[in-house]
Amino acid sequence: MNKDCLFCRIVAGEIPSTRIYEDAQVMAFRDINPAAPQHILLIPRRHIHSVAALEPGDAVLMGHLLLSARAVAEQEGFAETGFRCVLNTGEDGGQTVGHLHLHLLAGRQMHWPPG
Amino acid sequence: MNKDCLFCRIVAGEIPSTRIYEDAQVMAFRDINPAAPQHILLIPRRHIHSVAALEPGDAVLMGHLLLSARAVAEQEGFAETGFRCVLNTGEDGGQTVGHLHLHLLAGRQMHWPPG
Repeated sequence: MNKDCLFCRIVAGEIPSTRIYEDAQVMAFRDINPAAPQHILLIPRRHIHSVAALEPGDAVLMGHLLLSARAVAEQEGFAETGFRCVLNTGEDGGQTVGHLHLHLLAGRQMHWPPG
Repeated sequence: MNKDCLFCRIVAGEIPSTRIYEDAQVMAFRDINPAAPQHILLIPRRHIHSVAALEPGDAVLMGHLLLSARAVAEQEGFAETGFRCVLNTGEDGGQTVGHLHLHLLAGRQMHWPPG
């Protein structure tokens, strides 16, 4: 855990969140500034800064994160209607919290370009 | 291979593409309608329809796909400046080709919301 990291503190329960899924490796909770009717963040419990900081040994964890997004889509009832997964890395990517997170957006038509 | 799938035909070399990375499991090529100065598509060689069609055994492959996006960002020189990864699933997600693909966008400030 990184004590200065907002998402590590959410994982630790020091900061409240609306958890909708969790297991030993990942956690999902609602974004407090939703950009769609359904806007959920999925994060690894372990502190990883971003996609750019991933190491080869993280591949299984990252695959599990994406499979968990699929599971949450099923659980929340939008697997059929569709959804968008977004991972922002660094300044040009628009990353605002330095703990890797996957945005799962659904409940409306998502447009193009993606920001 | 799915004979009716555009991206399977790109993998097979039946349709030309600007390949910038490939290995035994994944392939990366430039999007023909770029939404950013750098706009690359990463796909598994194997035909998987979408994130919604993933099975538990696909986790390692999906992790490798994301790690490959990181490798391409390094190769193309935008790992430091930042990038956005986008996976569209189904109609609301804006998926236009029924072969799972990851959009890797960089070279400009990406905005919010993501479409």
